Amino acid sequence: MTVEPFRAITISRLAHQLKAEGRSIIHMEFGQPSTGAPAAAIARAHQVLDADAMGYWESPDLRARITRLYDERYGVTVDPDRILLTCGASPALVLALSTRFRPGDRIALARPGYVAYRNTLRALHLEPVEIACGPETRFQLTAAQLEALDPAPAGVIIASPANPTGTVIPDAELAAIAEVCRARDIAIVSDEIYHGLSYVGPTPSMLQFAPDAMVINSFSKYWSMAGWRLGWLLVPETLIDAARAYIGNMFLTPPSLSQHAGLVAMDAIDELEGHIQTYARNRDLMLAALPALGLKKIAPPDGAFYIWADIGHLTDDSVAFCEQLLRDTGVATAPGVDFDPVDGHRFIRISFAVSTPEVETALARLTPWFAARTPL
Amino acid sequence: MTVEPFRAITISRLAHQLKAEGRSIIHMEFGQPSTGAPAAAIARAHQVLDADAMGYWESPDLRARITRLYDERYGVTVDPDRILLTCGASPALVLALSTRFRPGDRIALARPGYVAYRNTLRALHLEPVEIACGPETRFQLTAAQLEALDPAPAGVIIASPANPTGTVIPDAELAAIAEVCRARDIAIVSDEIYHGLSYVGPTPSMLQFAPDAMVINSFSKYWSMAGWRLGWLLVPETLIDAARAYIGNMFLTPPSLSQHAGLVAMDAIDELEGHIQTYARNRDLMLAALPALGLKKIAPPDGAFYIWADIGHLTDDSVAFCEQLLRDTGVATAPGVDFDPVDGHRFIRISFAVSTPEVETALARLTPWFAARTPL
Repeated sequence: MTVEPFRAITISRLAHQLKAEGRSIIHMEFGQPSTGAPAAAIARAHQVLDADAMGYWESPDLRARITRLYDERYGVTVDPDRILLTCGASPALVLALSTRFRPGDRIALARPGYVAYRNTLRALHLEPVEIACGPETRFQLTAAQLEALDPAPAGVIIASPANPTGTVIPDAELAAIAEVCRARDIAIVSDEIYHGLSYVGPTPSMLQFAPDAMVINSFSKYWSMAGWRLGWLLVPETLIDAARAYIGNMFLTPPSLSQHAGLVAMDAIDELEGHIQTYARNRDLMLAALPALGLKKIAPPDGAFYIWADIGHLTDDSVAFCEQLLRDTGVATAPGVDFDPVDGHRFIRISFAVSTPEVETALARLTPWFAARTPL
Repeated sequence: MTVEPFRAITISRLAHQLKAEGRSIIHMEFGQPSTGAPAAAIARAHQVLDADAMGYWESPDLRARITRLYDERYGVTVDPDRILLTCGASPALVLALSTRFRPGDRIALARPGYVAYRNTLRALHLEPVEIACGPETRFQLTAAQLEALDPAPAGVIIASPANPTGTVIPDAELAAIAEVCRARDIAIVSDEIYHGLSYVGPTPSMLQFAPDAMVINSFSKYWSMAGWRLGWLLVPETLIDAARAYIGNMFLTPPSLSQHAGLVAMDAIDELEGHIQTYARNRDLMLAALPALGLKKIAPPDGAFYIWADIGHLTDDSVAFCEQLLRDTGVATAPGVDFDPVDGHRFIRISFAVSTPEVETALARLTPWFAARTPL
């Protein structure tokens, strides 16, 4: 597998190095909450640590609780057998793609998009069919674009809210995508890892429009448990046996303690909604401040915790730009090339999953820095 | 991927069902310690739970500590960059095979062997070349067998101590295997997950004979931390970048808490050696009792915690045999077909990673049961 290096990691390493040298660093380069797991989840983990020898284990209660989430959030009834617990969303994607597709299958996806989609497809000997998506479609692929692909791809990866843009696909468009996929026999993988993190109202699950969609989710974002490595894949009935066989050989079970804690976290609504309110405040601060910085072309951050900003008026090298920004201000961001190998040289992604004071400090540093930039 | 169901899981489900009905069950069907993590590791986990938000993280200290293990156990110096931390040995195997081989490559392995080897090879579009191994080679493949394969395979999976047999490859044979692989350009994947669990003295690492070998290990067996999902892959310098790229896309990091706890577990020598003493006692009890049960053809359990017993004089259907044994006595064991699709119908695997009183109870139940069997 030939994989481009993940440039945000390079930026993050530099950030940690500068921090070690005594610099004040604000980490806005990665997509992870700076908050920890809900207090009730941590309390449960303390209990389990002292009570359970923790062998290989899959929690039936957690699978049942996840089905309740689909019922309550989306009004969709799901059999617990369709839920496969994984060590986060990454192996869930591997599981979905490996179970459903054959080497050589063509899989459509939006560009820009999460870098691991493209790389994981290639690693599994699938062919990524990248659909260039600009501001006119809110950087999301459309039913019309899927309809126009000739021949039809074997599958499509949908992400709403998306990484790196945070944009949400409107309900009607999701329905239209589902309809095209049904008509053209395109299997859907819907990455719903940013569900629960929306600033424009509820985000529907693809499951509501396409009952046979494979759906990925994780405890890493909304539940603020990235380092606990817990996620799931929801598959249609027809794929349960194949997916179970795959997981039993390739991954086994996810961490026992994380399953116990995750079950409790799913009921810690107040604390989790508090995080969302923080993100919403952070987003408002960013949206209010960025135009004055000259960052006027940004994707509408409907959800997740990202700003995808066009910096094409200032640079054609987002990696050098992010590095200079970091060295000058201590604010770490992700270069757009990670998410879009074609046009990403003129974009950066800024994560606002930090505290509100950190956002305020970052903006105070960014304002004079951007004011001093000379347009190309 | 077409995968045979893992029959031990079926037996285990039946065991849990019988237990729920009030039966006394002894779980000897799976390869996992019934002990938990070392007390010091659990204490460390309690500390970290209250102090760390646990984002995506890879512990530099743990990688350094693992290199010290190679130094102390095997006298081999390893650069920490060569250690990749994973969610257990299963993804470490996926990582090793995906990074080093191309679809269609032929990979040699012993039959009997761990079922996931064969299935994972197939899932990754590699071709398993199973070498039938009987009691005359202690159920292990040999340098001569590798030498005789025509054409040479692209790779070979070595497991010593092995699952399901517990047999160890002698040092001279390991050296000879390394020499054949060097001469014929066969890449070595050495699964050393049962290292530390030996009853015949130290087991050398393949690394001592083949510096370019890929080596898999995990905290699930010796360190008694199966449900913590932590393992590692050691790769040669030349594969570091490819393996890092793969892991960064397909898996991300292993559980943060497990890395903190695992680091401390590596120094909990007294407690862990206590487990080995228990296994050694259990093994002695089993070896003393089994001949009287008519189980005279067993693999020499040099290491791990398994007895691989030939039951061909009693049955040609190990699945039905294990089920009957469980129903009659409450002792759950694993049918040989999981580990050997050709000859496994006349073998069972018994795990003695339970408490010594459980072994004594199991033997007390097995003795009259086997006495009542009629030879075929």
